[in-house]
Amino acid sequence: MFKRYLPILTWLPHYNGRLGGADLLAGIIVTVMVIPQSLAYAVLAGLPAVVGLYASLLPLLAYTLLGTSRTLAVGPVAIVALMTGAALSGVAAPGTPEYLHAALVLALLSGLILLAMGLLRMGFVANFLSHPVIAGFLSASGVLIAASQAGHLLGIELTAPDLFPRLAELILALPELHLATFAIGGGSLVFLLLLRQYGRPALRRIGLPRSLADLITRAGPVFAVLATTTATWRLELAEQGVAVIGDIPQGLPSLTIPGFDASLWHALLIPALLISVVGFVESVSMGQMLAARRRERISPNQELIGLGGANVAAAFTAGMPVSGGLTRTVINHDAGAQTPLAGFFAAIGIGAVTLFLTPALHHLPIATLAATITVSILTLIDLPMIRQTWRYSRSDFTAMAVTILLTLVEGVEAGIISGVALSIGLFLYRTSRPHSALVGRIADTEHFRNMERHETETASHLALLRIDESLYFANARYLEDTVYDLVAARPGLEHVVLICSAVNLIDASALESLDAINARLKDSRVTLHLAEVKGPVMDRLKRSDFLDDLSGRTFLSTYAAWRELSRPIES
Amino acid sequence: MFKRYLPILTWLPHYNGRLGGADLLAGIIVTVMVIPQSLAYAVLAGLPAVVGLYASLLPLLAYTLLGTSRTLAVGPVAIVALMTGAALSGVAAPGTPEYLHAALVLALLSGLILLAMGLLRMGFVANFLSHPVIAGFLSASGVLIAASQAGHLLGIELTAPDLFPRLAELILALPELHLATFAIGGGSLVFLLLLRQYGRPALRRIGLPRSLADLITRAGPVFAVLATTTATWRLELAEQGVAVIGDIPQGLPSLTIPGFDASLWHALLIPALLISVVGFVESVSMGQMLAARRRERISPNQELIGLGGANVAAAFTAGMPVSGGLTRTVINHDAGAQTPLAGFFAAIGIGAVTLFLTPALHHLPIATLAATITVSILTLIDLPMIRQTWRYSRSDFTAMAVTILLTLVEGVEAGIISGVALSIGLFLYRTSRPHSALVGRIADTEHFRNMERHETETASHLALLRIDESLYFANARYLEDTVYDLVAARPGLEHVVLICSAVNLIDASALESLDAINARLKDSRVTLHLAEVKGPVMDRLKRSDFLDDLSGRTFLSTYAAWRELSRPIES
Repeated sequence: MFKRYLPILTWLPHYNGRLGGADLLAGIIVTVMVIPQSLAYAVLAGLPAVVGLYASLLPLLAYTLLGTSRTLAVGPVAIVALMTGAALSGVAAPGTPEYLHAALVLALLSGLILLAMGLLRMGFVANFLSHPVIAGFLSASGVLIAASQAGHLLGIELTAPDLFPRLAELILALPELHLATFAIGGGSLVFLLLLRQYGRPALRRIGLPRSLADLITRAGPVFAVLATTTATWRLELAEQGVAVIGDIPQGLPSLTIPGFDASLWHALLIPALLISVVGFVESVSMGQMLAARRRERISPNQELIGLGGANVAAAFTAGMPVSGGLTRTVINHDAGAQTPLAGFFAAIGIGAVTLFLTPALHHLPIATLAATITVSILTLIDLPMIRQTWRYSRSDFTAMAVTILLTLVEGVEAGIISGVALSIGLFLYRTSRPHSALVGRIADTEHFRNMERHETETASHLALLRIDESLYFANARYLEDTVYDLVAARPGLEHVVLICSAVNLIDASALESLDAINARLKDSRVTLHLAEVKGPVMDRLKRSDFLDDLSGRTFLSTYAAWRELSRPIES
Repeated sequence: MFKRYLPILTWLPHYNGRLGGADLLAGIIVTVMVIPQSLAYAVLAGLPAVVGLYASLLPLLAYTLLGTSRTLAVGPVAIVALMTGAALSGVAAPGTPEYLHAALVLALLSGLILLAMGLLRMGFVANFLSHPVIAGFLSASGVLIAASQAGHLLGIELTAPDLFPRLAELILALPELHLATFAIGGGSLVFLLLLRQYGRPALRRIGLPRSLADLITRAGPVFAVLATTTATWRLELAEQGVAVIGDIPQGLPSLTIPGFDASLWHALLIPALLISVVGFVESVSMGQMLAARRRERISPNQELIGLGGANVAAAFTAGMPVSGGLTRTVINHDAGAQTPLAGFFAAIGIGAVTLFLTPALHHLPIATLAATITVSILTLIDLPMIRQTWRYSRSDFTAMAVTILLTLVEGVEAGIISGVALSIGLFLYRTSRPHSALVGRIADTEHFRNMERHETETASHLALLRIDESLYFANARYLEDTVYDLVAARPGLEHVVLICSAVNLIDASALESLDAINARLKDSRVTLHLAEVKGPVMDRLKRSDFLDDLSGRTFLSTYAAWRELSRPIES
């Protein structure tokens, strides 16, 4: 019982020095690496940069206690930050105390929703986000994030919240570009892109071992931060108008209590739900992928509790909504983290930075953070996936395209909701018009196949109709139409056999339709039979009056029905 | 082309005197019979009674031109009136000009939605209202309607809009009961109930022919109206506080233009959508049932256009949202209507009443109308259906129970939306955890059945896994879990064959899961094969890279896979 909800109890007793050494090293590396992105994602959400650090402290400890993934690293992540910004700007103005407070409420609500879903074992909800919808949503979000950072990179103040007005504003404002800011932002961007593209092979070529080459390549943002902060400080660029982070209150965050305000909670409920589900899906997919590499399993329902705990912790420590982050998790994994204790060490490291090193961040230019964000979101834009989906399925592509379009035009919430609704709608539409086939006997066998595709034996007074879908409310009427059309088209018909080999369910609506079909065929002197009804479906039919009223019989196999009915009967 | 959208062109050229005589008689009977309920349903919607007459004029003509059912009678109906009242009281106070205007906007919006759905051939949308949800919704609506009329029957003014506070208010106010009103309302109610229960057999017993006995029984409300109106007039009961209809403007309705007001349209959009769909479902089910009796077919998509036209007509002639009504349709059908021209004659008859006879309605007590409504909605409450559903399927019953509960507590809109959402959700949940079975060979046959239920031949290095559901995003991850659990549980496994006989679709998400399964099994040195993939599914797989990457083969039948793989291979 305790072990189920506190997975730390399963691994901590077996902990030893070797694991500790590996985790400590990973913790130190993660500390250094994630500071730039923690700051950056807080800025992306419209919050003071330090909130990103605060959100990387207690939430990591909470996840250490509650999470099941050994390498997942929790903290502010790009998509969740983008969605946080979108949600908060609906209820308060950035920079106000209300905005900060709303961030806490959002984190608390997300945390409570995740905890509730975990306790109710509702991890399956994530399955309703189809891959094309997620891929489309991430790609469009990447574009939105890039657009949101363009102003910071160029030193232009942009005010339009929506994508296209913002781009228009950007183009019109280009002449007002702030040169020093652009030098820092553009320079960092080019440096990061080059390092990402050519860093690893170049470092290998000069003889560095693979792991060190990887580490240095990934440390690009750290170098960019160090270099541009030093330059800005030495050259006093802040006085020339380069936006910097400025004063950060030194010390650990104080306890914050997100107060209860019904209208605010109500306004943030749907955004919190979407943030929870999207963050969970991203986090759990990554966790599963990494666990699979090490032949471990993670528990989606316990992950909900881990992420829920982390968000509640963020809410009480001046943070923002958090999730499992791709970049930080990959760094943690590659740095050799063995248990969640690596996250604990990283939290201590970030705590030390928050305590002692925030003055050093005063001169960190916002443009550098914008460059960091822009480069890291490039991985979100997945053009090959979009091409593949187009090639494979127009219906999946439609859901993806609508998600992309609405995310870009109407924002993240409208995008994800429409994507999910549309993909469910398309699936339901498909099942509402099920494939059915009139089958005939393949000569000298007990096999029955589609008459239109195979050479089969048939009888004009007998129709063998195979339905390739469960029968439920959405296709009940369609089934009636199919049978009535069949009867209308074949005047000599005496028997209709419904072959139910692919029918996994007959719900109450379909049962009524079967009743109606039975009654109407009886009026037309056509007998209705069933064949190959599966066990559980038959058990259920026996609980209704349908089998008593059925004009014909139920056959165990299509062949049995054929043997009995293929000779014309005298009526 | 013209015939498709104007079904009148298909039957009018063959019209003759015999049909005309039958239609004329039906029209006259319908005129007399539907006046009480037209007035009553307008009152139910919180509108002046005369609006019910107005809504029975031009809308009938529009449906005559556009509808495909030969006997469906259009006008104000109970459920739509209830939903209209609920929608309008959200935007205006009953009795104000704004309330009247909102009714026109609601009719117009419903009409436009129905027309759009018809032109887009979206009649299938109605299929997503499952039978248990409809039955639950109608039953709960019946209770709501009865509660809304209780005050009128007793002569008590009730103000609480919600069911339970209203009932509490009713009980507290019982001592203030207005005796004269109660005598009229209660008397009418008892008379109508007795006539309904015993009228037909009693009239047959005194020698009346069946059709006349039916007609007199159905004319109960007409007798009640005549008797109570006369009594109220003669005894001057209105002066003693019996609520009567009062002055009705004499003459045909003038042209009304529902103006465009963005915020009003926006507020009424969802209610209009719900009214459209619910009205359409009720109307088309009834139309289909009656058409089936006469071996005719109706076209659901053209019915949308017919009802859409009727509602637009109502919007421009001071009316209210209309639909095909159960009572009036049954009266029309039983009175011998042969073509939609019966509706045309009824419209002329109601027009004549509106022109000349409205002063006679001045003394008609509201309590009589309340009694009429109360008796007619008793047919909506379908307890046997609730019992049957409970017995047949807990899942369907859950959807029904939630619909009933939320309709009663939160109102018609919340009820119907939750019912639909829940029934779709339950269906998706079911398909998200598909049934699967490990199968083995029935000795000496080519048949493969569930190992757990049948005596089968198996091989320890070979797993034949049959999946009984289409593979799509909601169950893609579940498929992965199933296969991984299988592989983890059987260390000696060398081959996994997925039997796809019940797989009608593999969407992009499931394809990615198959890719992941294939890669992961390859890592574990287990080969993945497919068997019995259906033609269309295989065509689609060929458009992806999956078949190239597949570690194993695709077999046409399970038997072919068995023949090939059942002997252990040297690896």
